Amino acid sequence: MGARSEAAGYGDARERPDCAAARRRRLSVDRRRDELMAAALELFGARDPDDISIDDVAAAAGASRALVYHYFGGKRELHVAALRRAAAGLERRPPPMDGGCPLDALAGALARYFDFAEEHAAGFAALLRGGGAGRGGEVGRIVEGVRGELFASLTRRLPVREPGALLRVTLGAWIATVESAALDWLEHRDVERRALERLLVDQMVATLTAAARHDPEASHVLHNLKNDR
Amino acid sequence: MGARSEAAGYGDARERPDCAAARRRRLSVDRRRDELMAAALELFGARDPDDISIDDVAAAAGASRALVYHYFGGKRELHVAALRRAAAGLERRPPPMDGGCPLDALAGALARYFDFAEEHAAGFAALLRGGGAGRGGEVGRIVEGVRGELFASLTRRLPVREPGALLRVTLGAWIATVESAALDWLEHRDVERRALERLLVDQMVATLTAAARHDPEASHVLHNLKNDR
Repeated sequence: MGARSEAAGYGDARERPDCAAARRRRLSVDRRRDELMAAALELFGARDPDDISIDDVAAAAGASRALVYHYFGGKRELHVAALRRAAAGLERRPPPMDGGCPLDALAGALARYFDFAEEHAAGFAALLRGGGAGRGGEVGRIVEGVRGELFASLTRRLPVREPGALLRVTLGAWIATVESAALDWLEHRDVERRALERLLVDQMVATLTAAARHDPEASHVLHNLKNDR
Repeated sequence: MGARSEAAGYGDARERPDCAAARRRRLSVDRRRDELMAAALELFGARDPDDISIDDVAAAAGASRALVYHYFGGKRELHVAALRRAAAGLERRPPPMDGGCPLDALAGALARYFDFAEEHAAGFAALLRGGGAGRGGEVGRIVEGVRGELFASLTRRLPVREPGALLRVTLGAWIATVESAALDWLEHRDVERRALERLLVDQMVATLTAAARHDPEASHVLHNLKNDR
């Protein structure tokens, strides 16, 4: 008890030298891993993963080949780790949903999605294109996870608890629309980003309007969306 | 000259025994490869490729493990070959475009797309999910090839030569919508297929209508599409 409170007190005032050293080491390991993953995302996103070697990644991060193997074990493992980091960033991105009308909230969510796509352009494209990471279905699962997260944040927003078949297809298709538009934008950059975001919000309304002709639930959601406007 | 015409004459009437044997061998090799690829597609589409071994594929096709290695070299090579075959089938699928109004043609193209998805359910899902085949960017390139093909058949149909940025994004997004809906349908099968196809045609019109508010070219295409109706 005495030792515990002493240690706690010690930690509060100034860190114990051995703890501080361990913390520095850990921080430096984390930073090094981050640098390697960032370099890997940049390379894997920009070029065919087949054409990229561990040496390329090491050179881009100013590290040794041995260090990359030490931290990740191999190229595939590094790629999957980097994609997972990109995905975690995207999953954290969905905005708070309190207040505001649903269409504004949707526009806000889209803006954050595109912020992320822009900040992590190479990783974002690598993640969604899924290209080449292989390692069995891992990349597929990462992408499905990101989609599931977006889908859940969308249904919370509308709000719908358990969408029926046609509404589920419609919302899933809109997410595919957003992904496709974001990849196109990263590749071409010939549309103003805000204009694209506005188009995508309009397309959500349009696609719900089309679905509403086939499905009472979609009609109900659309009604809420518009009345809230 | 004499030998040549004699050989040609011989071939016309009845096949030379050695040619017939070679042809049988070739046919049987092709059929065996096909069987192995079909078994692989079935397995890779239904389960995580990480969990599937060459032995599983060999057992499903009633072949030996050695034969699979002989024909394909390895699991990844087999998977890529099988996906490429599925993609080739899909690329051949776009319908002839002569006559008929554009929206009927679009509905016809969608029906063929879903025919393909239904006939090759496992391979289709494996192709679009891209999951796990790895082998660098090969699967990515196969999927991009299929999308490019659909995109070209769509722009021929509308018709647009070189779509501008917003129309390109809109058409690409609609293709993503179709892919997403087809994957959802294969997974859940809780929507009537024809109803889903009608919804997707309506969504093409809806999405063009939304784009038309932002883009004169989309407005022009929409006008043609509706007037032709």
